[in-house]
Amino acid sequence: MTLTPLPLSTTTRLSINGDRLNRSIADLAAIGKLENGGVCRIAFTDADVQARQQVQAWMEEAGMTTRIDAAGNVIGRYAGRSENAPALATGSHIDTVPVAGAFDGCLGVLAGIEVVRTLKDNNVRLNHSIEVIVFSDEERSVIGSKAIAGEVHENPAYYVRLDGLSIEHCLAKVGGDWSQIATAKRKDLAAFVELHVEQGGVLENAQVPIGVVTGVVGQYRFAVKIKGRPNHAGTTPMNLRKDALVAGAQIVLAVNRLALETPGDQVATVGYLTVSPNATNTVPGEVDLMIDLRDLSQSHLEQLVGQLRAEISAIADATGTEIEMRQTLHILPTLAAPGIMNAIEQVCQTLNLSNMQLPSRAGHDAQEIGRITDMGMIFIPSRAGISHSHEEYTSPEECVQGTNVLLQTFLRLDRMYAH
Amino acid sequence: MTLTPLPLSTTTRLSINGDRLNRSIADLAAIGKLENGGVCRIAFTDADVQARQQVQAWMEEAGMTTRIDAAGNVIGRYAGRSENAPALATGSHIDTVPVAGAFDGCLGVLAGIEVVRTLKDNNVRLNHSIEVIVFSDEERSVIGSKAIAGEVHENPAYYVRLDGLSIEHCLAKVGGDWSQIATAKRKDLAAFVELHVEQGGVLENAQVPIGVVTGVVGQYRFAVKIKGRPNHAGTTPMNLRKDALVAGAQIVLAVNRLALETPGDQVATVGYLTVSPNATNTVPGEVDLMIDLRDLSQSHLEQLVGQLRAEISAIADATGTEIEMRQTLHILPTLAAPGIMNAIEQVCQTLNLSNMQLPSRAGHDAQEIGRITDMGMIFIPSRAGISHSHEEYTSPEECVQGTNVLLQTFLRLDRMYAH
Repeated sequence: MTLTPLPLSTTTRLSINGDRLNRSIADLAAIGKLENGGVCRIAFTDADVQARQQVQAWMEEAGMTTRIDAAGNVIGRYAGRSENAPALATGSHIDTVPVAGAFDGCLGVLAGIEVVRTLKDNNVRLNHSIEVIVFSDEERSVIGSKAIAGEVHENPAYYVRLDGLSIEHCLAKVGGDWSQIATAKRKDLAAFVELHVEQGGVLENAQVPIGVVTGVVGQYRFAVKIKGRPNHAGTTPMNLRKDALVAGAQIVLAVNRLALETPGDQVATVGYLTVSPNATNTVPGEVDLMIDLRDLSQSHLEQLVGQLRAEISAIADATGTEIEMRQTLHILPTLAAPGIMNAIEQVCQTLNLSNMQLPSRAGHDAQEIGRITDMGMIFIPSRAGISHSHEEYTSPEECVQGTNVLLQTFLRLDRMYAH
Repeated sequence: MTLTPLPLSTTTRLSINGDRLNRSIADLAAIGKLENGGVCRIAFTDADVQARQQVQAWMEEAGMTTRIDAAGNVIGRYAGRSENAPALATGSHIDTVPVAGAFDGCLGVLAGIEVVRTLKDNNVRLNHSIEVIVFSDEERSVIGSKAIAGEVHENPAYYVRLDGLSIEHCLAKVGGDWSQIATAKRKDLAAFVELHVEQGGVLENAQVPIGVVTGVVGQYRFAVKIKGRPNHAGTTPMNLRKDALVAGAQIVLAVNRLALETPGDQVATVGYLTVSPNATNTVPGEVDLMIDLRDLSQSHLEQLVGQLRAEISAIADATGTEIEMRQTLHILPTLAAPGIMNAIEQVCQTLNLSNMQLPSRAGHDAQEIGRITDMGMIFIPSRAGISHSHEEYTSPEECVQGTNVLLQTFLRLDRMYAH
């Protein structure tokens, strides 16, 4: 069978099969189904393996050749007419947190497959090959997209799982090979576009169906330990106390105020806090807390971290406590390629879908792939902003809209990038 | 042997045997000794039983008759000359928290025995009988002094121990009898004076050896539950959050400010706080915390509680959270009898010991006994204000000074109260 390029006027009328897309979403969610309606499909478990096999079969039915790289990524390829042109890629992950919904990650993979199915149904072959990638273990180690970006940690012990399994064992289980992990690095991708549910409430709040992601935020995490003096809550007068929780509360509010009152779009959170000895009758002697800080601009992040250090030092002085602040994580922001953002916006205009720009404040595989090639992301709404929960929900219609935007974006990028 | 009253000039020169007192303190601390040098002698355990037997033997050696009442209180009585006069009583407890020092409670019991030993050594018999009481389980149920005050809860299930043992079983083990608990109530005590370590840092800070206790504070406890909305710490913009920990931190600081800034001598503490789900990556959805509030004046306490309720309601409004505040404890303050305070102060002048008035902000058996008779308490310093710890320490000299004040106070009260 010989496929010939369709004229532009024809391809812009292409539209995906929404029923087929939503059936695939439901079928995939049946693997690892929980009693509460949610999904548990933690990376490298039997459920994850079963889901990978299902997705790989769907890729092949859609006319893709498939392979599994050393990082266990499942890569489907729908050949383009220019054999030597770098590929246009999409994809996401199908592993989940312990209690997840049907959409986080899965939508991006299944939308990619649906785009290819649609091209095949209409006998369309693009100039570039299209790849749909299932990245390994996005929810914990992010090892799949990090391997493709060449960012894997040298020491396999770094990747030991909570259940004690080694990364060597885990990769072998899904067809990967830790000893060959360096071979997973790619230099032949022209661009990468990921469709994902927002996992926040911005689009729903604005009643806008399509988000054009400006980039994936950078992130700092700090572990803070506060040492006060534990003492009897009755017999210790207020002026003789060194109350670690009073210092901790001041830090919680300082972090919140910093994010609320500094001009900018940053978020900052204390999500974890423990008190010791944690007894009603005892002035808290020690508090541990974690600070999470995210923004799209590295220089803005550095400025916020500087302010935070100064405030925490002042709190230590004022409360007579010792406070230690240790950085535990630093991820650089990845900006979306302006050309891809522009293509997505033009597609939305053509499809008559309102859209808005917003940053992604959660990590995604696109953040890693964006370090080696042009990156873009399309967001669709999450009901009530809920994600990582069995209550995660995005309507079938919204999934169809997002997938049509992905399809049309690929048609534009195919013309935009050299082949 | 016939004992005759000594003239006042002779009794005021009486002085206890300090070496004997401190040897008894060390001997008692050997029962339930921990490897870290502390003591573990939880009420109704074998160690508690062994310590009770030791103390009862010492009482008898000191010329007291002993009995065990239905609440398991060990009561030693050194007969006075007026057989029908109500007794002057002292005492405290010898049960401990899981990691305790040698002084909390024990000092009060052993000082009482040393006072009687001294009277016996000098052939002194007072007008009033003197009782030395070991109260049962001060550290948890306070059932010993509550039974003497007639304040025992009707339902024995209320007193079930953490280890699941029933109060019936526990009392029987130490010679008490739950079915007869009402018989423990006393109406024949003229006055009660308890010597105790301060358990706070006020005396040490002021470099004053003797504290004249003005009363035992009243206490309120509240369990506070804050319900916000758990959400992704990255994807949830600051203005869409209902952060339960931000509300919790505001409450911690409001409680602290209320105690620091309201005129008065109150203390207020949040010693217990837990966060749910307590994950770095998640805006806190729920916080539970406990508020403890103490003051000597019930009306002042009520005013503080009113202010607290208003502040917490305003915090709920400002943070968009739901906050529930449930009272879990209310103990009425007990004031010391002015006549006993005055007697202690005069004794200190005679003995040339500087002294100061202060409230007791910890609960004591005297708080319960003060509900049925005149009550006073003598405090001596705790090093660094530390108590309920193996690091609890009061010097031998300070113990001797306090016990001499107790002895002389009894001599004064013997003349002050009708017989």
